[in-house]
Amino acid sequence: MADVPENAPEQCPGTQSELAGKQSACQGCPNQDICASGLPAAPDPAIEEIQERMSSVKHKILVLSGKGGVGKSTFTAHLARGLARNEETQVAVLDIDICGPSIPRVMGLEGEQVHQSGSGWSPVYVEDNLSVMSVGFLLSSPDDAVIWRGPKKNGLIKQFLRDVDWGDTDYLIVDTPPGTSDEHLSIVQYLSCTNVDGAVLVTTPQEISLMDVRKEITFCKKVNLPILGVVENMSGFVCPKCKNESQIFPPTTGGAEKMADDLKIPFLGKLPLDPRIGKCCDEGKSFFEEVPDSPATHAYLSIINKLKSACQKDNQGGENNMDCS
Amino acid sequence: MADVPENAPEQCPGTQSELAGKQSACQGCPNQDICASGLPAAPDPAIEEIQERMSSVKHKILVLSGKGGVGKSTFTAHLARGLARNEETQVAVLDIDICGPSIPRVMGLEGEQVHQSGSGWSPVYVEDNLSVMSVGFLLSSPDDAVIWRGPKKNGLIKQFLRDVDWGDTDYLIVDTPPGTSDEHLSIVQYLSCTNVDGAVLVTTPQEISLMDVRKEITFCKKVNLPILGVVENMSGFVCPKCKNESQIFPPTTGGAEKMADDLKIPFLGKLPLDPRIGKCCDEGKSFFEEVPDSPATHAYLSIINKLKSACQKDNQGGENNMDCS
Repeated sequence: MADVPENAPEQCPGTQSELAGKQSACQGCPNQDICASGLPAAPDPAIEEIQERMSSVKHKILVLSGKGGVGKSTFTAHLARGLARNEETQVAVLDIDICGPSIPRVMGLEGEQVHQSGSGWSPVYVEDNLSVMSVGFLLSSPDDAVIWRGPKKNGLIKQFLRDVDWGDTDYLIVDTPPGTSDEHLSIVQYLSCTNVDGAVLVTTPQEISLMDVRKEITFCKKVNLPILGVVENMSGFVCPKCKNESQIFPPTTGGAEKMADDLKIPFLGKLPLDPRIGKCCDEGKSFFEEVPDSPATHAYLSIINKLKSACQKDNQGGENNMDCS
Repeated sequence: MADVPENAPEQCPGTQSELAGKQSACQGCPNQDICASGLPAAPDPAIEEIQERMSSVKHKILVLSGKGGVGKSTFTAHLARGLARNEETQVAVLDIDICGPSIPRVMGLEGEQVHQSGSGWSPVYVEDNLSVMSVGFLLSSPDDAVIWRGPKKNGLIKQFLRDVDWGDTDYLIVDTPPGTSDEHLSIVQYLSCTNVDGAVLVTTPQEISLMDVRKEITFCKKVNLPILGVVENMSGFVCPKCKNESQIFPPTTGGAEKMADDLKIPFLGKLPLDPRIGKCCDEGKSFFEEVPDSPATHAYLSIINKLKSACQKDNQGGENNMDCS
């Protein structure tokens, strides 16, 4: 299914199929001539431009989840802030959740605008070593809805990768929308030649969320995207009054740790449900600075360290196994 | 943006634009001839077939949210189960979350398959008066990922509306994915001639979720979809040990009630965060039967009654104001 072009008709047999260009569904498709010719389609020239642009970015991590609302953006923001605690480390965040961009709010950048310079779009800076790009910076009001079908969303993702002047960057963290559709296929396709370190999968403990993470794992395998590990978020709530711990989203089937174990993928850790995290996100503040000694802070820092090591290891191993074609 | 066809190139000026068919981006687009001719495009014949099929369905309610994970599927399932407590009422659920279908699990139907009959696809029945259709019933394994770009998702939604034999139905509840993209545009477009009662917007109390609901309200206004009201989910957690109530997702900007008040849309009620709801959803059981006396059950039933009245009122008022063209 990955070889169905964006502008293909519903019944497209796929560009790699023997029937490509020859089926009745191909009539009227703008790609019919290319497919029927039997020659391989020329790769999108943007992929090469993106490769060039990304050559100054050392590590690329995608943050994925199957289900929405499990804390992808919160995790992305904290991963970035955690990495940027070292002033020597240049960190950048790219938010490709086009229809629901939360990153500007979570990182305290609401109302900021993107500037254009000779070398491309400039990201917005939270700190000297932490920059952010999101469709949220392109809207005239935060209530504006981006009501776009797939191809327009893909076009913007391409622009973000090709036209943003990221500069010398150690880590680029990409926040994605829920699911396995246009945005996910596009980011993987556009980054295919740039040596992506891999994906972090975020989930909550209940089965309904794990079910969607398994779909995401299937997706990663299908597109040859390495999995850096699974994070279990909202993993238990400690009552501020009596300190009793409750499972708000009960792990009826054993939670993420058991799933990771069963599927033989790394389990990175559990993050407790702390209402102060949500409050910091609403207010665009850093949870690490506001509540430096909480169990959630320690859990975050441990996960971030594991990810750092995974990225280092990945680098020593040389190329990853993504298909660059 | 709503007049950009699914198979149009990225830079499509829109079929209603004066530049339609004349821009350089139009070269190679399968619709170029139609646009350049200046004649209005013939409407999709499926819309008439859907109108015919939907003539036996009295009320149609869409369940929307901006953000994911706020409880759309949980709300959809409980709304359907609540309405179906009256054995005289025929209720149907359509799940158009193609990449993350939760409804089969939440309604205890995992592993079920769709059957084909002379009158179309048969939905799967939970009770005699409660039927369900979801892409989940078409997958060979629950871990299978549907990795589809927009046009294929739109094709399946069309099939669900046109080819499923819903029979005489009082309420059709449509569960949607998060956001404002392909699935949302398609369902509204395909149902445009069928007198939709309106949308219920589900949110959690924190600003980051309300932000996305405001986008969804903008979407509803742009496509002339009436808003039946807003539901605030996960609205406070009562510690099972000490009965102290905590705000897990703190309403830092006043919560959904204040937002509904500010925007002059009906506020339907608050649903407390009760881990037993999540557990019932994981196990596919009815929360109403498992915990009939809980505050959450009472809150649900009150919201369902308000929605019933809104639908009755809507019927007395005759046509809604959706554009049927």
